[in-house]
Amino acid sequence: MASQWVNPRDSKFLLHEVLKIDEEMLGKAPFEGIDPEMVDMVVDGAATFGEGELAPHYPDEARGKPIEAVFNDNVVRAPEAYKTLWKHFAEGGWLSISDGPELGGQGLPSVVAAACNEFFFACNQAFTLVPMLTVGAARLIEKFCSDELKAAFLKKMFDGTWSGTMCLTEPVAGSDVGALKATAKKNADGSYSISGTKCFITYGDHDLCENIVHVVLARIEGDPVGTQGISIFVIPKNRVNPDGSVGESNDVVTGNVEHKMGIHGSPTCTLNFGENGKCVGYLMGRERDGMKIMFHLMNEERQNIGLMGTGLAGSAYLHALAYAKDRLQGSSMGARAPGKQVPIIQHPDVRRMLMVQKSVVEGIRLLSLYCFYTMDKGKAATTEDEKMKYQALIEILTPIVKAYCTDMGMVVNHLAVQTYGGYGYCRDYPVEQMQRDQRINSIYEGTNGIQALDLVSRKLGMSGGKLLTLLLNETNAVIGQALDTAELRQEAQRVEEAVHALATTASALGGIAKTSPTVPLLAACDLLNCFGDTLCGWLHLWMALTAKKALNSAESEEDRLFYQGKIEGAKFFVNRITSLVPAKCEVLAKDETSAMRISEGAFAV
Amino acid sequence: MASQWVNPRDSKFLLHEVLKIDEEMLGKAPFEGIDPEMVDMVVDGAATFGEGELAPHYPDEARGKPIEAVFNDNVVRAPEAYKTLWKHFAEGGWLSISDGPELGGQGLPSVVAAACNEFFFACNQAFTLVPMLTVGAARLIEKFCSDELKAAFLKKMFDGTWSGTMCLTEPVAGSDVGALKATAKKNADGSYSISGTKCFITYGDHDLCENIVHVVLARIEGDPVGTQGISIFVIPKNRVNPDGSVGESNDVVTGNVEHKMGIHGSPTCTLNFGENGKCVGYLMGRERDGMKIMFHLMNEERQNIGLMGTGLAGSAYLHALAYAKDRLQGSSMGARAPGKQVPIIQHPDVRRMLMVQKSVVEGIRLLSLYCFYTMDKGKAATTEDEKMKYQALIEILTPIVKAYCTDMGMVVNHLAVQTYGGYGYCRDYPVEQMQRDQRINSIYEGTNGIQALDLVSRKLGMSGGKLLTLLLNETNAVIGQALDTAELRQEAQRVEEAVHALATTASALGGIAKTSPTVPLLAACDLLNCFGDTLCGWLHLWMALTAKKALNSAESEEDRLFYQGKIEGAKFFVNRITSLVPAKCEVLAKDETSAMRISEGAFAV
Repeated sequence: MASQWVNPRDSKFLLHEVLKIDEEMLGKAPFEGIDPEMVDMVVDGAATFGEGELAPHYPDEARGKPIEAVFNDNVVRAPEAYKTLWKHFAEGGWLSISDGPELGGQGLPSVVAAACNEFFFACNQAFTLVPMLTVGAARLIEKFCSDELKAAFLKKMFDGTWSGTMCLTEPVAGSDVGALKATAKKNADGSYSISGTKCFITYGDHDLCENIVHVVLARIEGDPVGTQGISIFVIPKNRVNPDGSVGESNDVVTGNVEHKMGIHGSPTCTLNFGENGKCVGYLMGRERDGMKIMFHLMNEERQNIGLMGTGLAGSAYLHALAYAKDRLQGSSMGARAPGKQVPIIQHPDVRRMLMVQKSVVEGIRLLSLYCFYTMDKGKAATTEDEKMKYQALIEILTPIVKAYCTDMGMVVNHLAVQTYGGYGYCRDYPVEQMQRDQRINSIYEGTNGIQALDLVSRKLGMSGGKLLTLLLNETNAVIGQALDTAELRQEAQRVEEAVHALATTASALGGIAKTSPTVPLLAACDLLNCFGDTLCGWLHLWMALTAKKALNSAESEEDRLFYQGKIEGAKFFVNRITSLVPAKCEVLAKDETSAMRISEGAFAV
Repeated sequence: MASQWVNPRDSKFLLHEVLKIDEEMLGKAPFEGIDPEMVDMVVDGAATFGEGELAPHYPDEARGKPIEAVFNDNVVRAPEAYKTLWKHFAEGGWLSISDGPELGGQGLPSVVAAACNEFFFACNQAFTLVPMLTVGAARLIEKFCSDELKAAFLKKMFDGTWSGTMCLTEPVAGSDVGALKATAKKNADGSYSISGTKCFITYGDHDLCENIVHVVLARIEGDPVGTQGISIFVIPKNRVNPDGSVGESNDVVTGNVEHKMGIHGSPTCTLNFGENGKCVGYLMGRERDGMKIMFHLMNEERQNIGLMGTGLAGSAYLHALAYAKDRLQGSSMGARAPGKQVPIIQHPDVRRMLMVQKSVVEGIRLLSLYCFYTMDKGKAATTEDEKMKYQALIEILTPIVKAYCTDMGMVVNHLAVQTYGGYGYCRDYPVEQMQRDQRINSIYEGTNGIQALDLVSRKLGMSGGKLLTLLLNETNAVIGQALDTAELRQEAQRVEEAVHALATTASALGGIAKTSPTVPLLAACDLLNCFGDTLCGWLHLWMALTAKKALNSAESEEDRLFYQGKIEGAKFFVNRITSLVPAKCEVLAKDETSAMRISEGAFAV
């Protein structure tokens, strides 16, 4: 049953009934030991942990007193309560749900871990960034480091003794990673001396555990400029003694902690590496393979940020829904005389706001889970063709999931505040903070503009447009079934038209690019969102078809309500959102280059 | 020349060249004494005052220390710097730009005052709320109070000795004003004893001046329930002695000051009237005319909030523009090898974001000014027919201006943060605060949902649809001229199609309402925004036509850039935003009632 924070019922519906993981993957390699009951136990456990432990420490203010990460006397302190959260998070096994037993993990499918992580983000994004980055950094070490480094770091990261970060950005190198200035110089013992400043480092420093393991991009002296000359290093905050214990400082010094709009509990740090020439780093993989290696972590985090967008939108929606059922204002429609006040959920415009929230949240939830599902399918694939197909789907889905789930998440968070009216603007209600927290998700880990360029300039053109074709083909079966279902025929037609418009527009933009190369770039962000509107339309059809079948055999009133809600949600989303895709695409494929023609000086005189 | 805060050049273009106030109204009744030079002097003075005095005190945080209104020991304190701002604001004559000399004013057209107020909101919305409400309350007193009350209050309000508020909302009566519980009981001397609690009262208490004059809705004992039983009262915080000096407390006690997402400098108060039975109020107008009278103030404030949406969007855009010209990232398009970093304004996606910001800001700026311009035209009208026409235009424009300028303002503020990337999320840059401040504008003074219901349920149907016809007819002349102008023909056709779609959809919804009364209500918010998209398209054509003519005789490079920017902005707005109106309208006129069909229990199970 949905609380005001998480909706495990919906996640289980998606896992078992829509994506059918029981038949598709459980009990088969590499998930031989996993059965549906285990999945439910983990999902329910994550919901309980999120709601019971993380959510109570969500507020970043209590009675006007800020609860935030602070930087004083050169020490960074996370909110006091996070220490217990971090301990319990690790003890609960939440760091390694989908990792192998050799890493202390449970080996569940990634899609199940994703469902759990969505709950954690929904309940406390600022906190959950630390386990997320720790796991990401650890997995990179597992994949690209020597056994010696693995032995030194992995166990302690997966059991929460140490945490991890990723360090890309520098003051002059944000979206333009290739411009970084951090340097590495090889030492006699094979290690490297690192020097440079990194900024915007999430959990770059804190007091939650005894050591922090940084994964850092730097350029080895003499290597080429640009991204191709970048290497990647593991750099612990404190050196590690031969016995594995924490040794002396590794000359990583915090210069600053940012004051931000939201995620106040998460320390965003500027880190100075090697100011005193004593910072030692260890190469991951080979020299100059830095970007290729970092992309493993970046893609994983981009998919996770899609989950964050979904999670924060989801908890905001559930809060707004509860408020709308509780708050009395106005009399019921059609009543002429002022009468008894009714809950505002009875007013059409409030219902519209709630339906946008519900249908967007449930659409982006499945979209983000579907991306993790394709990873599992790829892992389980037995042929090279199948593996390549799922790899291609992940490639094209990643920028869409990152950007669309966060852009649309923001729409939901905005409407959740709006549902509360004036109270929504006050810090006493969590929807206020949720909107501020959500705001970061369209910025970090590659802005949504960078995601759109990745989609339009790289992914759509890769392998002669094969990724696009594969993705759009995925929608065929569901659309076909829905076309055969009277109740969903109109919606199926609209999704089909949207899919067609995407294919046509991608191809048209490819043509225009030859004469007007900026047109596809000017279209990129809006086109990415058209992809999202279309894919979520398809996924809504999939949910509605599943619900329609299940409705026939539903035994409880609760089940009937759940499935009926799915069908109405699908109609709303497709008819009001997906149906606009063809018109939006038509605009984007026009040769509209006023934004390029205008002189810089003419933007404001 | 545009700074990072205000763009007086654009405002003067709109006043003199587009709206042509010099020919249309200056020098004629009731603006006999006003000439174009005076207008420019006032506009330039307002820009200088805003940028020079208000903007430096905009930040609500300095080095991690909040700058905000606080409530301690039962005293509400505004930020210290606001005391000087308030003094200078009043001394500068900014409280009464468009009021008559008998009120200490300069008698300029409202549209000129609006241009100035936009600057003040752009530079410091939290502060500017206090003069705005003071003037609004004073004008209501001027219109509806006895000479005795006017003598007691008016002069001191217009010279800033006292401030004013409007008190509608109560904990159980927000959008549902009619549910208010505040009571009034007539005393022997003709005054009333007031009792009740009002919440969300902007500048309800503060230490900027010696008295505060509240305009308060309450129900006289025995009067009918609902809005028709409401009366309106003037209630000073402190009583006024017969000699006009400030007397004893009037039993108005502050219960609380809200902690909010933004506008931290503005104290949002809960006020308890008559807790000790000693609060005296004075009736405005007649008993039970409260709502009718308050609507004069509410409409004025709704129009002002359109200016706030425009102002905060405008200053955010100018900041983002300056940042985009300054920030170096990436190499220029087409460069294969990593080269010299270029300003990010050279990247197409950044230019797109800037063009959305520019074209939206300039569209909503003219839309909000046009609303004030119709007021002036109404004041200057010599026939009853003309007066009624302009009154009708104001009626239908008010909800559109309030909601559209703030909804689209938020789009601009979001993109301004996005233009800064990670820095935009940090409190060191004002765009962060601007987005938080902007968030309130779609909520207070009637949520944008309430505005949309006002448009769809009242204004569209008034006088048999006459308001709609009048408004759409206003677009004819400009569209006609643009159709005859080769360079703007395509854009003119798109605006014409949008106007046609609005007319068709309004009529279709009127028909559907007979069988499905919720459909127009479910469409209301989106339809209001379609009105805005269309009207701004029309206004962009108007600007572009004006610019095209002026371009021929432009003498300076600066002028040429300005006018070219207007033409490109119009093309961008119409082709990418207005052109979607027909498709959006088509969706809204469908009988899509999933949001009503869904059971309350099915929103989340």
